[in-house]
Amino acid sequence: MKTGGIQEQGIPEASVQRLVLYLRQLEQLQRLGQKTVSSSALGTSLGLTDAQVRKDLTYFGQFGHPGIGYDVADLIPSLRKILGIDRTWNVALVGFGNLGRALLNYRGLKEQDFRIVAIFDNDPDKIGEKENGLVVRPINELQAEVKDKNVRLGLICVPANAAQETADVLVKAGISGILNFAPTILNVSAEVPLCSVDLALELERLSFQVVHSQPSQVASESK
Amino acid sequence: MKTGGIQEQGIPEASVQRLVLYLRQLEQLQRLGQKTVSSSALGTSLGLTDAQVRKDLTYFGQFGHPGIGYDVADLIPSLRKILGIDRTWNVALVGFGNLGRALLNYRGLKEQDFRIVAIFDNDPDKIGEKENGLVVRPINELQAEVKDKNVRLGLICVPANAAQETADVLVKAGISGILNFAPTILNVSAEVPLCSVDLALELERLSFQVVHSQPSQVASESK
Repeated sequence: MKTGGIQEQGIPEASVQRLVLYLRQLEQLQRLGQKTVSSSALGTSLGLTDAQVRKDLTYFGQFGHPGIGYDVADLIPSLRKILGIDRTWNVALVGFGNLGRALLNYRGLKEQDFRIVAIFDNDPDKIGEKENGLVVRPINELQAEVKDKNVRLGLICVPANAAQETADVLVKAGISGILNFAPTILNVSAEVPLCSVDLALELERLSFQVVHSQPSQVASESK
Repeated sequence: MKTGGIQEQGIPEASVQRLVLYLRQLEQLQRLGQKTVSSSALGTSLGLTDAQVRKDLTYFGQFGHPGIGYDVADLIPSLRKILGIDRTWNVALVGFGNLGRALLNYRGLKEQDFRIVAIFDNDPDKIGEKENGLVVRPINELQAEVKDKNVRLGLICVPANAAQETADVLVKAGISGILNFAPTILNVSAEVPLCSVDLALELERLSFQVVHSQPSQVASESK
């Protein structure tokens, strides 16, 4: 994952990643009606020390109040602004297979104001298909649609062997950032932030935890 | 994300997460025919310092050789063993909507020896459907199938409002670990490691990078 100008400011990428998790936790607390939260309580739920929580948040501003903790209703919009999700992002989906369809209907994206406003695929069977008020377009119309619909982010959901070509088209169309779901490594201009989601990574993190939470089973099941 | 016994051993979860990324990078180098890699080169590609790479790997053993770096062919199987992916994991997929279908065909899972051996859904239209040699079964057959097929990990791909119930069924069936894709927070017994994948998180990390790599655009586009 590239971090653009962030690392120059000395903010570890891991702190940015945790910021997103703090926000999720705070939103959950807000739903439960909680007004304030200590760094210790915020950390515990995520398996982090209170010192780590304070350090991470200090990179981005002064948020806590001694003896009170963080004001949930104050911290949420602050974090949303830092993360750039205090606005609506128009998103293009490229590749309308099962994963693309899943993302189109993924509740979490809508909740965070990521709006899929255009869908592209090169499969003649999919072009023209209507879904959620959108019509699937061929990829050669991407550049024009990105401009027309003020698309800022692109989701790559095509097979691995078509992902680099798709990234090139998105960059050429002037997209601001790319989220890649294809299981392959992409090369794009350093000016266009690129994040890659590797769904197998999460299973590997899980297998690590399973193996290490049950040490007696490690030896017996190795190949 | 819970970490089971890991944090007790003083290994930060972030180091575990990076271990997975190191492995990906090493596998890529191996495909390119590279025999050794320095901590500096390994770090650069991931936006990390050489000190961070060395520190992370030191948690798990002594791998490097002064003046030579890491032996790619040695380090890969070591990391796979640490991560618990030196074996095949049998996986059950619960929820056979678009996301479940995408995961069933996701190349990255097969490459890492995660084998989906059972599929469950409660939709009568889906029960009995055949895909990749598997038959979709009703969830009330989960417990028996988990035992019969030696299933160790469960993937939750059901809608958010059915996710907790699904987790409960998986725990009761004696599953070793759960990967949750539903956009909701689940409570499970501390003995069963649980990882949650929030697809919106990745878009939020991307939006952070886009905003901070183009500071002139931050103000003008805020709501």
